[in-house]
Amino acid sequence: MNKYLSNLAKGLEPYVPGEQPKDGIYVKLNTNENPYPPAPEVFEAIKENSNDNLRLYPDPESRELKAAASKYYGVPENMIFAGNGSDEVLAFAFAAFYAGKKIIFPEVTYSFYPVYSRLFDVDFSEIPMTDCIKVNRNEFRKAGCGIIVANPNAPTGELMDLDFISEIAMKNRDDVVLVDEAYIDFGGDSAVGITLEHENLLVVQTFSKSRSLAGMRIGFGIGNQVLIDGLRRIKDSFNSYPLDRVAQAAGVAAFKADGYYREMSKMVINTRIESIRRLRELNFNVLESSANFVFASHKKMKAADIYTELKKRKVLVRYFGKEPIDNYIRITIGTDGQMTKLFEELEKILPCC
Amino acid sequence: MNKYLSNLAKGLEPYVPGEQPKDGIYVKLNTNENPYPPAPEVFEAIKENSNDNLRLYPDPESRELKAAASKYYGVPENMIFAGNGSDEVLAFAFAAFYAGKKIIFPEVTYSFYPVYSRLFDVDFSEIPMTDCIKVNRNEFRKAGCGIIVANPNAPTGELMDLDFISEIAMKNRDDVVLVDEAYIDFGGDSAVGITLEHENLLVVQTFSKSRSLAGMRIGFGIGNQVLIDGLRRIKDSFNSYPLDRVAQAAGVAAFKADGYYREMSKMVINTRIESIRRLRELNFNVLESSANFVFASHKKMKAADIYTELKKRKVLVRYFGKEPIDNYIRITIGTDGQMTKLFEELEKILPCC
Repeated sequence: MNKYLSNLAKGLEPYVPGEQPKDGIYVKLNTNENPYPPAPEVFEAIKENSNDNLRLYPDPESRELKAAASKYYGVPENMIFAGNGSDEVLAFAFAAFYAGKKIIFPEVTYSFYPVYSRLFDVDFSEIPMTDCIKVNRNEFRKAGCGIIVANPNAPTGELMDLDFISEIAMKNRDDVVLVDEAYIDFGGDSAVGITLEHENLLVVQTFSKSRSLAGMRIGFGIGNQVLIDGLRRIKDSFNSYPLDRVAQAAGVAAFKADGYYREMSKMVINTRIESIRRLRELNFNVLESSANFVFASHKKMKAADIYTELKKRKVLVRYFGKEPIDNYIRITIGTDGQMTKLFEELEKILPCC
Repeated sequence: MNKYLSNLAKGLEPYVPGEQPKDGIYVKLNTNENPYPPAPEVFEAIKENSNDNLRLYPDPESRELKAAASKYYGVPENMIFAGNGSDEVLAFAFAAFYAGKKIIFPEVTYSFYPVYSRLFDVDFSEIPMTDCIKVNRNEFRKAGCGIIVANPNAPTGELMDLDFISEIAMKNRDDVVLVDEAYIDFGGDSAVGITLEHENLLVVQTFSKSRSLAGMRIGFGIGNQVLIDGLRRIKDSFNSYPLDRVAQAAGVAAFKADGYYREMSKMVINTRIESIRRLRELNFNVLESSANFVFASHKKMKAADIYTELKKRKVLVRYFGKEPIDNYIRITIGTDGQMTKLFEELEKILPCC
């Protein structure tokens, strides 16, 4: 460890993002990107905003983007925060509400949560899953501290209903309950509507999944104004201008193209249903999923081997390699063509009986 | 203060960025933006990258951008870090090298440094300026702790030479010496070349000033690989993908258009020289400046009043309103046309004798 590092930096265990190979030779089903392109309006907005005004700082408050978000989500603008991807919004939330405090989250969930916790000195506990790798809901009802849940959960795909979200918000009303809805548009009901009822409920969403804009880094926090003010305190102590002009304009256009994106999400959902059916035919145990990925373990072949063999055959899936999910692979739902390639390769590598 | 905030969030004093009025009616000389547009190649790169690949995450390591930076700066790629504007690079540096430690910086400098310090529990001391508002160099020679200096300094415009930077790097070799070169292209010698000699020297640059890309958020850290690794540890504990695909491409194009930008910087420098001459004619005391702004106080009229009167007349300059610079205004160098408008209005509001 080098001598210039602060103790804070020394104590970190940085997140390892999924592989992003530069060459386009892979069928890329490893980082839950949308297989369909962004709406044409988004490209138009980017081109229009590629102009002389780029010499000027962007609006530090992303007001036009928040206005579009307000209209879409049906909550006032002062209940919306915009950040450089939902990862940044999450980081700000950890600093604003959880630093130096106790929080819980499921043992199997987005693996960035423990990383943020170490960066901001959060005392976190990972609540073990049930035997079928579901969120142990009773433990969250009686938390008595900050809570973060991904809904649907990743990498399992499990959806929690709004009654449960309401219940944990009410039962832990002195602490912030954060619901990370990165995958909500692929089949779940968003908790945005009930942020009006629960002052302590913060919903985080991203444009990287259902909006096909992982490459643009746009994320939101939605909740009571007191929570939004907390996020802004951190932003303005870290980087006043997190969203560039082009990203702000792309985000506005993406909100307006909602009809297009609904169609794309429907296609992903249909492909997911068919993919689960086929995986089960191939002797996979597949968890129910409300997201744009499925989490599966094979009855005869080890997950690590499936990952490796698929990669050799130019199909990338995600393998986490840690208990209790070390025999699972996560497969992003691609186009029907991409999934056909996946199944062709799976049939070559899986044991025939 | 709201009950959900962490003690960390409660203790912050967020940065207040300069005004960014939405309407274009102001002659905007308040946030040190470049008055000239980005190079045409930058617009081309943005348009080319506004394509279906936006559905995919960007390269988390910005490798193409770092390759272009490596060529430009003449240091290996592993000595370069790219972030979402130099503000983010600075925030990461505070966390990586200064958290929980002691640092010093000049009393009059970029006002974000104390803000970062509070966010990352840095024990900072502000070293008083000399009577003519210059950096008190002797205090930095004997620091015995982390150092951050902006060179040229902001908002004063003072340039420090490389012998001084080398000296403080050598005399404080157990701690990181950070040189914030946001304005270096307007007349100073960069310390990038001497990062090869000093393991503890980190240079931070931005594309927001001389590259006319404040609206795109692109910044760099340049230094020994051990320092770059430190920055990466924080990035990957905060947000793995700080630069979107469009920004990365714009940055590559901007490096290639170096000739264009050199011409623009020359024009800014010429306008600065002429502006200083005219301000002095109008009874301003103007500090020597090597940046794209000047710092001035009038012998008869209060800075606060000049700021207010200019704003009424649709000319925006920056007024900080705190000791020991409460009688100074900072004026960004605009086009010759913008400066003509400034002087026309100044002549109307300044006392005639």
